[in-house]
Amino acid sequence: MSTTEATPGKKYTVIGTRPIRHDGVDKVTGRAKYGGDIRLTGMLYGVMLRSPHAHANIKSIDYSAALALPGVHAVVTVDDFPDAENKIAELGEGAVNLQHLRHNTLAGPKALYRGHAVAAVAADTINIAEDACKLIKVEYELLKPVLTAPEAMKPDAPLLHNNVYTNSLGEETKQLSNVAKHFRFEKGDLEAGFKAAKVIVEREFNTATVHQGYIEPHNGTAMWNSDGKVTVWCSTQGSFTARQQVAELCHIPVGNVKVIPMEIGGGFGGKVSVYLEPVAAILSKKTGRPVKIIMNRADCFEGTGPTPGSYIRVKMGADANGKITAAEAYMAYEAGAYPGSPIGAGAMCVFACYDIPNGKVDGFDVCVNKPRTNAYRAPGATNAAMATETVVDELCEQLKICSMEFRLKNAAVEGTRRIDGQVYPLIGMIESVEAIKNSDHWKTPLTGKNRGRGIASGFWFNCGLKSAVTATVNFDGSVGLVEGSTDIGGSRTGIAMQFAETLGIPVDQVMPSVGDTDSVGYTDVTGGSRVTFATGWAAYEAGLDIARQMCQRAATLWEVPADQVKYENGGVTGPGGKQISFKDLVIQSSKHGEPIVGRGSADPQCPGGAFATHCVDVEVDPDTGKVTILRYTASQDVGTAIHPAYVEGQIQGGAVQGIGWGLNEEYFYDQSGVMRNSTFLDYRMPTCLDLPMIEAIIVEVPNPGHPYGVRGVGEVPIVPPPAALANAIYNAIGVRMTQLPMSPPRVLHEILAKKK
Amino acid sequence: MSTTEATPGKKYTVIGTRPIRHDGVDKVTGRAKYGGDIRLTGMLYGVMLRSPHAHANIKSIDYSAALALPGVHAVVTVDDFPDAENKIAELGEGAVNLQHLRHNTLAGPKALYRGHAVAAVAADTINIAEDACKLIKVEYELLKPVLTAPEAMKPDAPLLHNNVYTNSLGEETKQLSNVAKHFRFEKGDLEAGFKAAKVIVEREFNTATVHQGYIEPHNGTAMWNSDGKVTVWCSTQGSFTARQQVAELCHIPVGNVKVIPMEIGGGFGGKVSVYLEPVAAILSKKTGRPVKIIMNRADCFEGTGPTPGSYIRVKMGADANGKITAAEAYMAYEAGAYPGSPIGAGAMCVFACYDIPNGKVDGFDVCVNKPRTNAYRAPGATNAAMATETVVDELCEQLKICSMEFRLKNAAVEGTRRIDGQVYPLIGMIESVEAIKNSDHWKTPLTGKNRGRGIASGFWFNCGLKSAVTATVNFDGSVGLVEGSTDIGGSRTGIAMQFAETLGIPVDQVMPSVGDTDSVGYTDVTGGSRVTFATGWAAYEAGLDIARQMCQRAATLWEVPADQVKYENGGVTGPGGKQISFKDLVIQSSKHGEPIVGRGSADPQCPGGAFATHCVDVEVDPDTGKVTILRYTASQDVGTAIHPAYVEGQIQGGAVQGIGWGLNEEYFYDQSGVMRNSTFLDYRMPTCLDLPMIEAIIVEVPNPGHPYGVRGVGEVPIVPPPAALANAIYNAIGVRMTQLPMSPPRVLHEILAKKK
Repeated sequence: MSTTEATPGKKYTVIGTRPIRHDGVDKVTGRAKYGGDIRLTGMLYGVMLRSPHAHANIKSIDYSAALALPGVHAVVTVDDFPDAENKIAELGEGAVNLQHLRHNTLAGPKALYRGHAVAAVAADTINIAEDACKLIKVEYELLKPVLTAPEAMKPDAPLLHNNVYTNSLGEETKQLSNVAKHFRFEKGDLEAGFKAAKVIVEREFNTATVHQGYIEPHNGTAMWNSDGKVTVWCSTQGSFTARQQVAELCHIPVGNVKVIPMEIGGGFGGKVSVYLEPVAAILSKKTGRPVKIIMNRADCFEGTGPTPGSYIRVKMGADANGKITAAEAYMAYEAGAYPGSPIGAGAMCVFACYDIPNGKVDGFDVCVNKPRTNAYRAPGATNAAMATETVVDELCEQLKICSMEFRLKNAAVEGTRRIDGQVYPLIGMIESVEAIKNSDHWKTPLTGKNRGRGIASGFWFNCGLKSAVTATVNFDGSVGLVEGSTDIGGSRTGIAMQFAETLGIPVDQVMPSVGDTDSVGYTDVTGGSRVTFATGWAAYEAGLDIARQMCQRAATLWEVPADQVKYENGGVTGPGGKQISFKDLVIQSSKHGEPIVGRGSADPQCPGGAFATHCVDVEVDPDTGKVTILRYTASQDVGTAIHPAYVEGQIQGGAVQGIGWGLNEEYFYDQSGVMRNSTFLDYRMPTCLDLPMIEAIIVEVPNPGHPYGVRGVGEVPIVPPPAALANAIYNAIGVRMTQLPMSPPRVLHEILAKKK
Repeated sequence: MSTTEATPGKKYTVIGTRPIRHDGVDKVTGRAKYGGDIRLTGMLYGVMLRSPHAHANIKSIDYSAALALPGVHAVVTVDDFPDAENKIAELGEGAVNLQHLRHNTLAGPKALYRGHAVAAVAADTINIAEDACKLIKVEYELLKPVLTAPEAMKPDAPLLHNNVYTNSLGEETKQLSNVAKHFRFEKGDLEAGFKAAKVIVEREFNTATVHQGYIEPHNGTAMWNSDGKVTVWCSTQGSFTARQQVAELCHIPVGNVKVIPMEIGGGFGGKVSVYLEPVAAILSKKTGRPVKIIMNRADCFEGTGPTPGSYIRVKMGADANGKITAAEAYMAYEAGAYPGSPIGAGAMCVFACYDIPNGKVDGFDVCVNKPRTNAYRAPGATNAAMATETVVDELCEQLKICSMEFRLKNAAVEGTRRIDGQVYPLIGMIESVEAIKNSDHWKTPLTGKNRGRGIASGFWFNCGLKSAVTATVNFDGSVGLVEGSTDIGGSRTGIAMQFAETLGIPVDQVMPSVGDTDSVGYTDVTGGSRVTFATGWAAYEAGLDIARQMCQRAATLWEVPADQVKYENGGVTGPGGKQISFKDLVIQSSKHGEPIVGRGSADPQCPGGAFATHCVDVEVDPDTGKVTILRYTASQDVGTAIHPAYVEGQIQGGAVQGIGWGLNEEYFYDQSGVMRNSTFLDYRMPTCLDLPMIEAIIVEVPNPGHPYGVRGVGEVPIVPPPAALANAIYNAIGVRMTQLPMSPPRVLHEILAKKK
């Protein structure tokens, strides 16, 4: 691999190495069990009936004929869930309005998007269930759909809800609206800032809805036992979040629900919310049998939460020295059918790479007739970076200043206050830019016709949240490690490495496993780039808990006071040069004394932000508008790279998803609101044939808010690519792209427009 | 139920109640998953070829034809296990000689009993595997079998082993022998004791081999992964013991083996050792696929460890006041094919109910051509009590003293030193006798021809050993509890109750589960009547660990020093009358702070012995010898009855097994050493039609060696029944039975002999 090696130096013995992941063999041999692999005795298969219309009142549902079909055991609609009006649940990732969650799970009075689940059937086979769905008569009253934020914000736009009022700048209005929220961040004197500018650039941008595109479709299996206990098997980013959402939708205590997390084939934010699990649960309640539901690919596109399309206007000014004087953004993000777009995160990130003396950001959360959006890798930040980073490129062009120097001059540093008020701790924006500046890529001139180079930076704040771990010491010195974080990207190993580092033992002597919700302490979702940071911290605490017990054992063994022994260098040391390794002490302890068990939990407050800078060379085909990537280098401050290979993998994966978003991916809707490309054949995600090697440069500015300096890694690499590509396209052929994706037709359109 | 209610008084809120068990619904609806329910992708089925001969040299094994059969994937013999000569493993319950374990798993140079596994086949189906077994050519050289201890101890007896020398009174001899061990306990001056006696009774007894008779046959499924990690699914009394035995037989570290304990359909000591798991593991290693093996009933009888047949001679003397002056026992227990009978336990228990001033016990562990014995409920103690308690009955008869008064006069009490040297802490022998004396049963005269009443007492020392528990607090105040003890008799609930008591929360808010060996701290076998005692203690420690954390939270909440708050009455109290319940504090804590996780482990040293006294009325049919039980009452000191209904269940179950052992059960061998009754039709276990209601009287003398006063409960109730029945038969028809079982032919034989 052509990457810069992390150099943790002598500081760590386990951290910074590249061990084989503990679940590797199971994953590559196909033995790992995913949600789709679950088969239970007497299990029924569920199928969802979905709305063919983007916007319609549901006048009636008659499922008597479906229920009469031999092999059908139950049909459910939204009425099978207890009403949830006014019951708001504070769930894992953001606040979830329970009534909205209920109506999104099975449509309430209205179908609000094509693919919205309307009813579900449980039958002996999938085929019978599908046939039964066709027998359900739904009487729809068609309404005009509204598909983009600007459209939906028009005063005469069709309204999705009769109970969503604009919350404008913190004030609840009585105005029914598709705009669920309008908020504003402000800093300094915006007017004075723009007055001080030598050049001002203002542009507007539109980005399309894109999907996380995880390989494994959603699945959910549930057994509602006759004692009222519900067991759920699913592939989820957060077993505890799934537990809470199932419990709250079904109005039962969380203690009555056990979620058994299966392996997960990608999530990227899209597997935080429940879609099938509560439906499987109530079908099981009705039938007394376990019920399994799996989505097909069209269901995934049309019935789950993609990341929002958006309209963004950015205005930035800079003085003659290339110092930013002011920045303003107007950002309208599509929430989809129910409020809750990642506009908040987008607004936090839009100018976060820079020290902006005067700024204003207006954010709008706008309901449209599309699936309710959900998280997707640094949610909201990629849309925002597309705007800011291309405007920065244009500022640099007008000021005739190298965009690299511009970034270094204006970079946010420790102590910089963002427009939203947050003040940075030690961060690595400058270091991420310098890494590109010093890279072979940047130093190698690009030549050739229709070729161009672009750079862009990006920010993601990362999350902390709650995690728990328990550790059990075996008599041979190996340790079982139970964690609540479902493992999407190798986190079992990253967590085990931090635990092993704490005790100074080999990481292959740690056996990590992911517990069900009855077996491990509360742990928030695998998302927000938080797992290596927060669950790693919990593992560190569990290690300390064990180290303390080892010290007590050694003190007893040596008959010395406990305060005269110390855990260090993989064992305990005591007075007079006494020393015993972890393993030897464990073997001693196995004969006498109780088993050694450690616990650790964490709710850390300072995840430390992540900054990335990407550099891309492209060649644009002037006849077709097709953009070919010639070279791609991504640098990123990762704090401490626990497992450099997985850090590189995250950087590469994020960059690739950003490239797909930038060049090809989009939900292609017709005027009636029907997605016309809901297959992987038509929804153009990049394949290896579309991509060069992504060169990953690991930059390590340790996070002072973590015992091992960890920052989140997984999300920020998706942020810069679209903007970097747009800047490269401009550099290649002189057209400024303001729409995503920058697909061949769009690029060709700009080429032809420029020729005119 | 006609039982005396436990009266824990105001002391406890949860302990002493009778909640529905947490796993109840799953068990009664058939949803609980046992080892037999495991089905894995690509799974093969294993079948064992077993020796048709009781004693034979194996000259050769040719399995080429079996391997050539289509559908057969592998055949293994003992040579597929690494040699284990001189490698002794200290395992969970007693020391296990690894080479013997290896040769018992698959026969080494000799087949030592009928049913001894010789080879195993893995094939696509069970039928193919069975057919393949028939194609394996084993060349046997037949040897004369020896089937009882007295026979095997004769100087000219056929020898089973060429490497077993008598260890006599601690001295290793060079004498090849079937007697693996001879040890002696002594106290006082035996000769003087007998001289002081007014009456002396000496009798000899023979008891047959009997089986635990669990309903669920043994099963084992294993997957040897390509990274060298082995996963085992089985129904076992000790997942950690199974892990260790599989690891040691396969010469891999215990950390490489994960045992996932399935539900278990009875064990009674018989599911401590591994039989199938290591074979499934090496078949899986050879084939690269998971392999499952299940025994049929004949395999269970012939191929697993029953409890030993025995020869016992007991001599006791008492003075005119009815005080025991001396007692002597000679006890030879059948080890089966390899050394390791429970003779040690039998010798500890034989006179343990009484304060014996002068005594001697000689114990012999004798190899015979029967399956290697294994634990069965108070292993060794029932055989011993049959001897002692009928001799006591005869002493009382000769002294013309009520046997109840005799027991009260001679009962062991706190401070009594047993012949083996142990000194009792607070115990309840007297209380168990008095409970019978005060019972309606004892006070109700028995009338009628051929009817008689007998009583007998029994002792079991109980075990402590290691246990671990983790507990995870949910935000609704419910708690997940993970324990390492496999649950055979409702221990999930008994452990959860002690945890709930510690925190003062309702037990239905505790969700117990049994973890796999990677997910919970080391925990010894479910056996020795140790789980409620030791794992309960670990749960108590986990509760204390959580209580400490709750106190810290409350102190932070109230902004008071930590030493001013206290956990009591289900919550935290602080200065100025401050008070908050567990649940409310948990809900508070869910908003801020890390998840709350507790850990507890225990290795308690004072299990506190258990004493039981049983009373039985019988009617004997003088024409057939059939014994009908008219009424049965069992009293027992249980320390503290955590869940009285399960305590009663244990007392009843133990009594029933003792009755079966006493009246009907036996391995019926022909002269060639072939068991002729290896089905449940022919091996006569009692059914409900053979039994009256067993009245259980709970006596509570709290164990000072446990935070809640728990003693072991499960084992001692099997001890008194055969002796009580023998005494009742004598009382009914005047014949003294000295052989077990006291089946109709044997009783009739004595009746006819007496008539002569």
